[in-house]
Amino acid sequence: MRASRFFVSTLKEAPSDAEIVSHKLMMRAGMIKRLGSGIYTYMPMGLRVIRKVENIVREEMNRSGAVELLMPVVQPAELWQETGRWQKYGDELMRVKDRHGRDFIIQPTSEEVVTDIARTELRSYRKLPVNFYHIQTKFRDERRPRFGLMRGREFTMKDAYSFDRDVDGLKKSYQNMYDAYIRIFNRFGLQFRPVAADNGAIGGTASHEFHVIAATGEDAIVYCPTSDYAANMEAAEALQGDVSRAAPTQALTKTATPGKAKCEAVAELLNIPLNTTLKSIVLTVETAATKSAPASKQVWLLMLRGDHVLNEIKANKIPGLAGYRFSTEEEIVEYFGTPPGYLGPINTKRPVIVVADRTVADMHDFVCGANEVDFHFTGANWGRDLPEPMVVDIRNVVEGDQSPDGKGVLAILRGIEIGHVFQLGTAYSEAMNATFLDENGKPQPLQMGCYGIGITRILGAAIEQNFDDKGIIWPTAIAPFEVVLCPMGYDRSEAVKAETDKLYEALQAAGVDVILDDRGERPGAMFADWELIGVPHRVVVGDRGLKEGQLEYQGRRDTEATSVPLSEMVDFVKARLNS
Amino acid sequence: MRASRFFVSTLKEAPSDAEIVSHKLMMRAGMIKRLGSGIYTYMPMGLRVIRKVENIVREEMNRSGAVELLMPVVQPAELWQETGRWQKYGDELMRVKDRHGRDFIIQPTSEEVVTDIARTELRSYRKLPVNFYHIQTKFRDERRPRFGLMRGREFTMKDAYSFDRDVDGLKKSYQNMYDAYIRIFNRFGLQFRPVAADNGAIGGTASHEFHVIAATGEDAIVYCPTSDYAANMEAAEALQGDVSRAAPTQALTKTATPGKAKCEAVAELLNIPLNTTLKSIVLTVETAATKSAPASKQVWLLMLRGDHVLNEIKANKIPGLAGYRFSTEEEIVEYFGTPPGYLGPINTKRPVIVVADRTVADMHDFVCGANEVDFHFTGANWGRDLPEPMVVDIRNVVEGDQSPDGKGVLAILRGIEIGHVFQLGTAYSEAMNATFLDENGKPQPLQMGCYGIGITRILGAAIEQNFDDKGIIWPTAIAPFEVVLCPMGYDRSEAVKAETDKLYEALQAAGVDVILDDRGERPGAMFADWELIGVPHRVVVGDRGLKEGQLEYQGRRDTEATSVPLSEMVDFVKARLNS
Repeated sequence: MRASRFFVSTLKEAPSDAEIVSHKLMMRAGMIKRLGSGIYTYMPMGLRVIRKVENIVREEMNRSGAVELLMPVVQPAELWQETGRWQKYGDELMRVKDRHGRDFIIQPTSEEVVTDIARTELRSYRKLPVNFYHIQTKFRDERRPRFGLMRGREFTMKDAYSFDRDVDGLKKSYQNMYDAYIRIFNRFGLQFRPVAADNGAIGGTASHEFHVIAATGEDAIVYCPTSDYAANMEAAEALQGDVSRAAPTQALTKTATPGKAKCEAVAELLNIPLNTTLKSIVLTVETAATKSAPASKQVWLLMLRGDHVLNEIKANKIPGLAGYRFSTEEEIVEYFGTPPGYLGPINTKRPVIVVADRTVADMHDFVCGANEVDFHFTGANWGRDLPEPMVVDIRNVVEGDQSPDGKGVLAILRGIEIGHVFQLGTAYSEAMNATFLDENGKPQPLQMGCYGIGITRILGAAIEQNFDDKGIIWPTAIAPFEVVLCPMGYDRSEAVKAETDKLYEALQAAGVDVILDDRGERPGAMFADWELIGVPHRVVVGDRGLKEGQLEYQGRRDTEATSVPLSEMVDFVKARLNS
Repeated sequence: MRASRFFVSTLKEAPSDAEIVSHKLMMRAGMIKRLGSGIYTYMPMGLRVIRKVENIVREEMNRSGAVELLMPVVQPAELWQETGRWQKYGDELMRVKDRHGRDFIIQPTSEEVVTDIARTELRSYRKLPVNFYHIQTKFRDERRPRFGLMRGREFTMKDAYSFDRDVDGLKKSYQNMYDAYIRIFNRFGLQFRPVAADNGAIGGTASHEFHVIAATGEDAIVYCPTSDYAANMEAAEALQGDVSRAAPTQALTKTATPGKAKCEAVAELLNIPLNTTLKSIVLTVETAATKSAPASKQVWLLMLRGDHVLNEIKANKIPGLAGYRFSTEEEIVEYFGTPPGYLGPINTKRPVIVVADRTVADMHDFVCGANEVDFHFTGANWGRDLPEPMVVDIRNVVEGDQSPDGKGVLAILRGIEIGHVFQLGTAYSEAMNATFLDENGKPQPLQMGCYGIGITRILGAAIEQNFDDKGIIWPTAIAPFEVVLCPMGYDRSEAVKAETDKLYEALQAAGVDVILDDRGERPGAMFADWELIGVPHRVVVGDRGLKEGQLEYQGRRDTEATSVPLSEMVDFVKARLNS
């Protein structure tokens, strides 16, 4: 490609609404252009990256045996009503009416449509297994779109859906996709980690996320440096400590803690470690009235160590707590006789269900709220001062916790989720009556899996992982161009022009994706553009070097240029591309 | 590709709502699957054709110097309000509100978005010319979606937009696209014709349509078999006849024509040729009140020869008639004193503006309504019985008319429009204030052209042109597979399996897009499937032939198979693919 026939458009400054580095750099490099909140045009430079990402995904999906189709962007509401997601999906689902007033949605994902296809196309066990995928525009009406392509509203996703006759088949299809994802993310040239993810209502290790590692990542990834263990924060189990609870040594004492409503403040006042205090979290579960029972309300008290953080997903899995909400201050006063800040499990005003985190269950002589403003108890002990609680893992793990596989201690990294594989089981096929006939002619529900990759999000994630103060540093496999050829005086020097053209053709003939910058920019501006855009390999052709038969090569991460003989440059570049 | 790893799904019968052959065959061949009215999933077999079409389009667009980007499907209403299309587009424009109640549309086309990009990115004459294109999902909420992909609501379109500094530049960009379109449609292997199209408000030959020739086409294409002239019906000019008007020979006579309200009936009753009668068409133009003038209404009478048909586009171009509507019966009675059927230009009750078609202006001794129920005039003559009318070309041409280029007579073909190129001029750039700075730093409006190809529609058009009673006959360039390899007893005969696998690999190595049917279907069902799907080349491997070292080749249009020696088959197939 010649730059004069392409569209290169860079900016000195990022627009003020760009908050993170990938968003800023993509705007400055002319890769995307904002059309509206969370809606971007992929400009020519950005689209080239997207196409390279798509091609890698497509090749590996096809290699895995998945079959590509293309499901519509605009989908009838009826299918979404069958699964109940028309009601449940909430405001993120973009709803639209046609000229006849019929309801449609703009697809955020395609489980309903693919299950509808399956129930007519996959009627016999002989048709199974099948894995359908498409690479298609999605829309999710995010409450607060931001971070450019990282949390946009319109985006491109690869979503695949496997159909199997039984759970064993589903597990094989799942593993097949897991393996394909590993190949895909390896080919991108990104540092990534697959992690076990929360699997919702389905048992087993039925879900994994794939994260690109980046210091700016939204998600915490938990892993064990001395083993294979890796999970996202939602799914990482906090084990029971290996030291069992010590015997009480202090008496229960009501202690004045005026104005100290936070564990940190209490610990400071009393001059005790934070990890001897208890944090109280109050949750409400409401049940609607039915014919046989009136509406009811339960209030739960969750106890965490003062320095720990509640894991809301784990809490939601406690039998009876599903669908909880945080209690209102009014409810807290009603049940505890005091507003938040001085709550505890001892002497509540009305009965509440107490759940202690595993760590809390092992504590003795702890400090907790006294259910009276400006007072805490010290020297509290389970069994002696209050009943033994229900004990459940309800906290986020922290660095240094034991790894759940028993093979070391946990560390934490930041990651950006770019892929997710999930065993759906029969949730959709049963809701939509998608069955196949087995060998005996008996209808059986299809076992489904779904597998997503955020195509456009990968651009943001790749940049968050690979940039410097000059701009983006694309991995070669997904760079808009592999090599940029920068002639010094293309319009002035015949020798430069001739050798540049020759090298350009030779690189193209060697299958190298090269752009020749024939725009006539000054060297400084030209170099700055391509460093900002992030083309990973640069070759400079100049009169001075040519006199000695030399060209200059510089990799985007190299601190210095390398002189390479003219005749060897093609081989040199190819070697660098393959390294 | 092995069929066992692909998804082949054929139907014996087409669904009852499929009206035309391409729709029926695409459904039966498992190329598309209906999701809702005018909304289809492109199944794996259909998607392969779409991708081949897209690739040809993309290659030729890139060769022409156009640059690919991707504009969003969901677009903010504000831009459409700037050009007024938010109001004018009508019900075909799919409108949607986001969670905050802001208005958006699902794009039917992208002039507004690309002009918005241009006004920030193309600020200097140095950036021009540019041609941006994308291949993207479109949605038009058709009142009556039908004919499968031919008139769907969701479809894929390639739309390109050129930006130039002046009209000369625009004309060059336009010709460049015109040439690219010729290359594209030639590469598809379809019989097509570019035709001059109506150019709306812009002068010059500023618009062409590209039609695939098919007996079932919706559009009439006018051409001259002895010259290059070709136009669509809307644009084809009907010349003044070369015989001038003869002198009157009859007296004007009011003649009873009881119950004969149509020209055909009058001609039959009076035993005269239909082409001596006049047809009256009454149009109303309303003008809204302004500060300086009250609302007004004009009634026009358009006169056509009894056997001719009004061209509504031509009528709309008559100064003063733009935006007309057909008059109501009430208005007709008010102006003519009689209901429709007996109208004419003589003795109208109130004054009307009379427009005669060119053919009509040359008539003498004609028959027209007498503005009295059950009566017509015979022997009417311009100048003698009524004033000379305004003369304008307002009819559709018919076969045998003189060609406008004077080089023969016109013939008419049926076509399916699959492409359109259009010189927009400054209509959008002025509405959206999209200017560039010229060498003198003076802002000038961008000269725009737009260029569309209906990607998914091409599938329907290709089939309407190429099918037989067995199914589709794809041109090789856009066939889902170029060659199908049909082994007879792949699972039973080791020799068949071995030779089939060898040939499969050899064809793949030779770059042939081949599918091996290893599904284990019986020969009859297997052949019927691939004939229905329309793969243009078939090779059969069977034990009987193998004994003599022979395989059977049959092209989809061939009536008989050809025996080809095993060792020569790859070369034979390649020769057929290139022929």
